[in-house]
Amino acid sequence: MASVPSPSYAFASDNAAPAHPKVIAAIAAANDGAAPSYGDDATTQRAAEAIKAAFDSPDAEVLFALTGTGANIIALASAVRPWQEILCSDVSHSLIDEAGGPVRLSGAQLAVLPSDDGLIDPAELDRAVVRRGPVHHSQPRIVTITQSTENGRIWTPQAIKDFIDHAHDLDLLVHVDGSRLGNAIAALDVAPREAIADADIVTVGGTKNGILLGDAILVRRPERFDGIHFVQKQIGHLASKHRFIGAQFEALLNDDLWLHNAAHANAMAARLSTGLERLGLRLACPTDANEVFVDLASDTLQKLSAHYAVHQPDPLKPAVRFVCSWATTEAEVDDALQILASILPPGS
Amino acid sequence: MASVPSPSYAFASDNAAPAHPKVIAAIAAANDGAAPSYGDDATTQRAAEAIKAAFDSPDAEVLFALTGTGANIIALASAVRPWQEILCSDVSHSLIDEAGGPVRLSGAQLAVLPSDDGLIDPAELDRAVVRRGPVHHSQPRIVTITQSTENGRIWTPQAIKDFIDHAHDLDLLVHVDGSRLGNAIAALDVAPREAIADADIVTVGGTKNGILLGDAILVRRPERFDGIHFVQKQIGHLASKHRFIGAQFEALLNDDLWLHNAAHANAMAARLSTGLERLGLRLACPTDANEVFVDLASDTLQKLSAHYAVHQPDPLKPAVRFVCSWATTEAEVDDALQILASILPPGS
Amino acid sequence: MASVPSPSYAFASDNAAPAHPKVIAAIAAANDGAAPSYGDDATTQRAAEAIKAAFDSPDAEVLFALTGTGANIIALASAVRPWQEILCSDVSHSLIDEAGGPVRLSGAQLAVLPSDDGLIDPAELDRAVVRRGPVHHSQPRIVTITQSTENGRIWTPQAIKDFIDHAHDLDLLVHVDGSRLGNAIAALDVAPREAIADADIVTVGGTKNGILLGDAILVRRPERFDGIHFVQKQIGHLASKHRFIGAQFEALLNDDLWLHNAAHANAMAARLSTGLERLGLRLACPTDANEVFVDLASDTLQKLSAHYAVHQPDPLKPAVRFVCSWATTEAEVDDALQILASILPPGS
Amino acid sequence: MASVPSPSYAFASDNAAPAHPKVIAAIAAANDGAAPSYGDDATTQRAAEAIKAAFDSPDAEVLFALTGTGANIIALASAVRPWQEILCSDVSHSLIDEAGGPVRLSGAQLAVLPSDDGLIDPAELDRAVVRRGPVHHSQPRIVTITQSTENGRIWTPQAIKDFIDHAHDLDLLVHVDGSRLGNAIAALDVAPREAIADADIVTVGGTKNGILLGDAILVRRPERFDGIHFVQKQIGHLASKHRFIGAQFEALLNDDLWLHNAAHANAMAARLSTGLERLGLRLACPTDANEVFVDLASDTLQKLSAHYAVHQPDPLKPAVRFVCSWATTEAEVDDALQILASILPPGS
Repeated sequence: MASVPSPSYAFASDNAAPAHPKVIAAIAAANDGAAPSYGDDATTQRAAEAIKAAFDSPDAEVLFALTGTGANIIALASAVRPWQEILCSDVSHSLIDEAGGPVRLSGAQLAVLPSDDGLIDPAELDRAVVRRGPVHHSQPRIVTITQSTENGRIWTPQAIKDFIDHAHDLDLLVHVDGSRLGNAIAALDVAPREAIADADIVTVGGTKNGILLGDAILVRRPERFDGIHFVQKQIGHLASKHRFIGAQFEALLNDDLWLHNAAHANAMAARLSTGLERLGLRLACPTDANEVFVDLASDTLQKLSAHYAVHQPDPLKPAVRFVCSWATTEAEVDDALQILASILPPGS
Repeated sequence: MASVPSPSYAFASDNAAPAHPKVIAAIAAANDGAAPSYGDDATTQRAAEAIKAAFDSPDAEVLFALTGTGANIIALASAVRPWQEILCSDVSHSLIDEAGGPVRLSGAQLAVLPSDDGLIDPAELDRAVVRRGPVHHSQPRIVTITQSTENGRIWTPQAIKDFIDHAHDLDLLVHVDGSRLGNAIAALDVAPREAIADADIVTVGGTKNGILLGDAILVRRPERFDGIHFVQKQIGHLASKHRFIGAQFEALLNDDLWLHNAAHANAMAARLSTGLERLGLRLACPTDANEVFVDLASDTLQKLSAHYAVHQPDPLKPAVRFVCSWATTEAEVDDALQILASILPPGS
Repeated sequence: MASVPSPSYAFASDNAAPAHPKVIAAIAAANDGAAPSYGDDATTQRAAEAIKAAFDSPDAEVLFALTGTGANIIALASAVRPWQEILCSDVSHSLIDEAGGPVRLSGAQLAVLPSDDGLIDPAELDRAVVRRGPVHHSQPRIVTITQSTENGRIWTPQAIKDFIDHAHDLDLLVHVDGSRLGNAIAALDVAPREAIADADIVTVGGTKNGILLGDAILVRRPERFDGIHFVQKQIGHLASKHRFIGAQFEALLNDDLWLHNAAHANAMAARLSTGLERLGLRLACPTDANEVFVDLASDTLQKLSAHYAVHQPDPLKPAVRFVCSWATTEAEVDDALQILASILPPGS
Repeated sequence: MASVPSPSYAFASDNAAPAHPKVIAAIAAANDGAAPSYGDDATTQRAAEAIKAAFDSPDAEVLFALTGTGANIIALASAVRPWQEILCSDVSHSLIDEAGGPVRLSGAQLAVLPSDDGLIDPAELDRAVVRRGPVHHSQPRIVTITQSTENGRIWTPQAIKDFIDHAHDLDLLVHVDGSRLGNAIAALDVAPREAIADADIVTVGGTKNGILLGDAILVRRPERFDGIHFVQKQIGHLASKHRFIGAQFEALLNDDLWLHNAAHANAMAARLSTGLERLGLRLACPTDANEVFVDLASDTLQKLSAHYAVHQPDPLKPAVRFVCSWATTEAEVDDALQILASILPPGS
């Protein structure tokens, strides 16, 4: 069989990227003798303190999960009883891309709120709570939002503050899915806390921003998530050789590596986005962070796929996603643009 | 405050041990450019093939979980419907040390069988199925056993064959929790398949045998575990940068590193066990693999704890557990024995 | 405190109505000596046969639940695994009025389809299944529809046939929530089977149509609902003195009492609906069966509530629901209309 | 085929008995016009007050379930979070005869305590809580006991007080499964509250003591069972035409009908028990209330079964259960004894 070269995964996802060399070095450095397991080691303790400090949240608790899906489920399932309800956007990862895990674990119903590419109007919350009280209806308890959103949009500090304050006024907790939180912070160029406002619990993504695997959970109001450590254990997200999770996060937080990684990814996405528009293509939504969504005709997509693996999130829509990472190079961006230029029909 | 030296974790658990240098090297080597995520990468595919080959199970499927608890839950929860029952021993990890995760995820009741340090008489299965049929009773569907057991005992090839054959005769599936499976195989000095007999699904531990984190799940009868990939995803055990899991297992299987690691751990446990008996101490159970259980008076335990962290599994019993790993040295064993000799009351 | 007369519950719901005298008589008649429990009695067997005969479904199984919510949950939870998905309309009882029970019991996510007062366009099913396959997404397995719908609409025999055939083409099972199925059949004036087409499982409501309590579950494809008897038992819906459930259904089916009851309720709703329109009020949706939805200004609703308890299903909409039952009288209908006439603002 | 007369169900179970005529009359009396649904009717309110008064528990809440299994599940599932543990005896209905429903609904593990026919030594509780604290273990939260037990034994007022006080000292809640609570109270001849001591929640059985169907749940510490009304609704145990449940309990409490019914059943069991011993048979356990357990050889059981349906709870033991009810007559008892006398081997 003739050899067919595989497409590049440079834009497939930020989780197709390698880990940052400093993270690999940190793992090797942590591999030194016996250490307490299950998070009682010094490396993990330092990583937790670094995360609390980064978010100016001295009273928070930090625990770690091994994947973003795990982190979201642990946060949500420890927030609700099974007759309560989790509110989410119509494009949320928890709704679409976690195989129903949040529902299975919590036993709680999801209520879907319409959104602008993941950005939700606070007024939607008012409508979502009208059936509170009577025993016939499941009871809204927490709303989950994503920063930056699944469609690559960013909540401004004012927008997220207004949303969360309104949720709190309605006695709703707020979870921020931060699998790409670094990208939002870097793009906004604010203190990390500004990007999460008064959120009750935040998952701080690591995997998509330069580490091997792992997400942190910043529990800013621990009293509302009692039992969260049990949920973490129950679904197998309490690593035994925990130092290797701690070491990755320590490296990521050190000297703001996470924000530098994210800023680079954002810059590459901006370069790509601009280039796509110059080619006459239509962006499916604005490029706020490190994800670019562009409408491609199906034959264009097919031709492109021989060169670059990309993702079409909704089979019924022409939008195709390119994700840039800490490892994406200008050369890769330019190459992808050049290839697209060569395969686009003339005059398009 | 005067500095108090921390105790050594050399015997606390095999998950307190570091990772083997070859595993660290394999991770660094895998960190090369973009790669498909979620297990579609070549490294993971090679690791899966190596595991199937090691267990002479060409028709099996292999998937990976990030912890042993995760692997057990994925295996058990995909085997049962929530009106069925999971049988387990009275010392099993799934019963005692997974925070109720298998029950929470599956919705199925555990039925506890008496055992000899985790070794179960096949006749117990007969008794466990007497209420099958009527809708009033939960219905036994799978039995989980551990090789080597939580108390460090080993099922001989004949014993595990007899047990599993009898389970199959009774229309029960069999899961082998192999978080320390390598230790059993090394101790038995048989082909790996002999140590699992005709088990339907096996979790093959990595974390306790030299890697950072990760357990493989060898699904030998995939048609009885339909949906297992969904369960894996639902609880967040499908790693996105999956190559780093694959690379660890590839290194572990290569040149039988896992069996060499396990044999070393077993040898250190034998040395320790012999030494303890020479000190006049009573072993709480035979030392078949890499765990040693010895009865210690509470003041002896207290004094020892200043030097070595050890685990007392049942607060109502005097048995104390020492675990040896691939990294345990003869010097550490001898040092622990010497310390014990110095703190044991004269004439004991 | 001065006595305040209570409002009448004649239109509050068909479950505010009393039981039909023939049902009470049947209960008294069944109360004769000892009998096998849990459904093994002759009365229950006869009732089950009568239901199968009424729906021309000789190969079906019949079991009973004690409430409509219970019946729906048993049907849905036995249809799905927890990584599968239940499709439902945006006004469905299972979504809104069962406190999240179907989700809690099944562990499965609900996917909400837009509808015309509960009537769903078959094309919505195509869109609902586009993410089938990949392990990241929950997998659509069953769609539940309601006949007559929660908003009192009726699926015509052709419409329900087309919908169900299309669902089957897409490999989806179909559940019909028939808590008011008798009203649909009576209004359509067809053989019962025409009103359910090729549905896989049907809950046949009794409580709202003349009995004390109880719903039947007609399992037309038992092999797709294995374990349904266990689910029934697990949530406490297998009555021990089961003959009293059987006796009620036997009385209800005898001489088509259920259809006569339903036809009467429908006729009263038609009378009310016509009268409301004559008063210049706007119906919120057509009156197909025994429920009438009419828009009322809030002060009108408040004044009416002193006389008749009525239900406002959505606090954000002016629609108010009147439900007629087998026991509603023409005098009650006319009295309600007269009261409304007296409290409506002049010229409205 | 020649006609084979069916065996009598007089001793099969107290749920094979008919309902008391006063209960039937109460249902007929309640069937008068429209009434509020879901328990807001006056009849239900009176029944709830009567139950609170009977148990001298003015601060309790009362809600109703439709079966004993439903009542137990509602009580237990609202007591625990899914990482907590439910303690129960080795013969408990919740463990053996509810098809795993309590586990499925709560997600919580059952821990089985050894017992003397359902009577548990308080010291067992000490052992059951030794693993509290660490996140690895499920956390004991509530213990369920049965009064009278599944084996027909009775907790004396002192024994149940000591047990419950000890449980409370250990920060465990206590649930009393009272499906045959009336029999215990009647046998003890004490105020009802003496028979439940300081229990936190009690299911008060109705079905086995003269009504058609229904169990009350007396929530004596409502603050520890928040959400219980949602659980009731979620599994379909909130009857819509609730007055018919209320009416039955009102009739049952009126003039202590429940205690008269229970005392009669106990007396018949005593007569039977004495008679069996006179026949030289061995009781499998003492007859404290309305259940009689006697060892029968298998051929004796087979011959008896042609005349009377009886239950053999454990297929591995010779004990056979006879249950007497409010409707059992002396003639039936004497007939059963006479039949046994005729089929027992001479000299046995």
